[in-house]
Amino acid sequence: MKICWFDDDRLGWVIGNEVLDVTPALEALPQPRYPHPLGDALVAHLDTVREAIVRLKNLARRHPLAEVRLLSPVARPSKIIGVPVNYTDHVREAQNATATFKQYDGGIEDQGLFLKATSSLVGCSEGVQVHFPHRPTHHEIELAVVIGKPGKNIALTQALSHVAGYAIALDMTVRGNEDRSFRKSIDTYSVLGPCLTTADEVPDPQSLPFSLSVNEQLRQQSNTRHMIMSIAQQIAWASTFYTLLPGDVIMTGTCEGVGPVQTGDVIHATIEGLGSMSVDVR
Amino acid sequence: MKICWFDDDRLGWVIGNEVLDVTPALEALPQPRYPHPLGDALVAHLDTVREAIVRLKNLARRHPLAEVRLLSPVARPSKIIGVPVNYTDHVREAQNATATFKQYDGGIEDQGLFLKATSSLVGCSEGVQVHFPHRPTHHEIELAVVIGKPGKNIALTQALSHVAGYAIALDMTVRGNEDRSFRKSIDTYSVLGPCLTTADEVPDPQSLPFSLSVNEQLRQQSNTRHMIMSIAQQIAWASTFYTLLPGDVIMTGTCEGVGPVQTGDVIHATIEGLGSMSVDVR
Repeated sequence: MKICWFDDDRLGWVIGNEVLDVTPALEALPQPRYPHPLGDALVAHLDTVREAIVRLKNLARRHPLAEVRLLSPVARPSKIIGVPVNYTDHVREAQNATATFKQYDGGIEDQGLFLKATSSLVGCSEGVQVHFPHRPTHHEIELAVVIGKPGKNIALTQALSHVAGYAIALDMTVRGNEDRSFRKSIDTYSVLGPCLTTADEVPDPQSLPFSLSVNEQLRQQSNTRHMIMSIAQQIAWASTFYTLLPGDVIMTGTCEGVGPVQTGDVIHATIEGLGSMSVDVR
Repeated sequence: MKICWFDDDRLGWVIGNEVLDVTPALEALPQPRYPHPLGDALVAHLDTVREAIVRLKNLARRHPLAEVRLLSPVARPSKIIGVPVNYTDHVREAQNATATFKQYDGGIEDQGLFLKATSSLVGCSEGVQVHFPHRPTHHEIELAVVIGKPGKNIALTQALSHVAGYAIALDMTVRGNEDRSFRKSIDTYSVLGPCLTTADEVPDPQSLPFSLSVNEQLRQQSNTRHMIMSIAQQIAWASTFYTLLPGDVIMTGTCEGVGPVQTGDVIHATIEGLGSMSVDVR
């Protein structure tokens, strides 16, 4: 199933080129209270909500997908995690461009994962707003893994069972020397879209071709099979440090070809099986 | 007013050595819905809740402060922000101990702020659980600033008007080479307590003496007047990158004397006007 959020916080079920407005399915969620349980409530109760969504199929109002405003398909993640240097070709390009990239030592285990602020999260229709235009803002296309259930010290063999689904992510980045979790946390610098594709529709998340173009010029192209650290390893390792919660997003690293964008550009990103999204740079 | 969360998500009003159970004041909050507005709902509506709390004064059940289990006084922050190298004496000790501290270049503006995962947040009664005992876990006492209202590109002169209140923070840290936002995001490595002291009770947050001891041995002692970057500057600068939201916590940096803790230790932390807290290391 492909789930999206659209317009003014409407819940959508994406079927082909249409979005079914299945917002009433949210009534299947437990009554909200404050303080709410940690993590994203919809992802935490995805199975229940899915059943409610299916029951609405013939009742739901339908919109052309191209005409709705797509928000982040995970509405309230409690954390967004990034994986550095996870494709060999990107490591090489970073090492060859010392004027642009901060120099880090070592592989992923040495560098550690990093966080992006949840306040930086937008959907593809919201676009990216360039901050600090005198500095380079780079695009990085990544497979986003959305965690489905809480876990700590998750066994490698169980790791993929903690995944609720997948989406396309843009890990937008201002280059410079500051902490990654600062440069990558600028408002609108975490794009998720176009929808959440549930894990059952992605038989092998480690073999997904993906690509990114800017103004119809191809910039990045690779396949998730080229990750240095697999998705399962990322989940298992991350969970030795922190509890992973429903809705937590892992941006699993980018391939070579990252480069600058500026106001007026249009980024187009595709991951096979997860759809495509166009993102305006404002 | 001093506000706390205690036991099984009870809202408390701390008066002297007593906690008044003012949980019914939460009814003053807007009806929760999903997806909830960004930021912590109680802090976003603090003025309204305060009025409701005051009305409960004579009705509330009272508990000895020493007998309740104190949780984080901000229940659901959307981000926890850290400020590196903000006291000259701590910068010096880090430069003198290259075997323990990752070497960073430059001052705060060069290094940038960093994030800590909200899943690492606990209250003082929950204690710190040492992870990776073969590596040093250090204590860092810091003044925590709690943001009260949303803001982006906040003017320096307006910055302190965005503060809801203050608390004591422990920015617990595993030393090593990984990204700060990973090493400082371990479960239980962000301690906030004992309560949220509202800003009106803190006439000058830049002149607060503070200290930390481990097993009654003094380890850290300074005054917030020694910050290199002031609280107002931190808020103004942070908000040029990301929107600050109600409940967001800024841990404003630590002074010299950081050092290791191990299972069985008891950390005691005090900031004048904000109270004291004892934290067990498990």
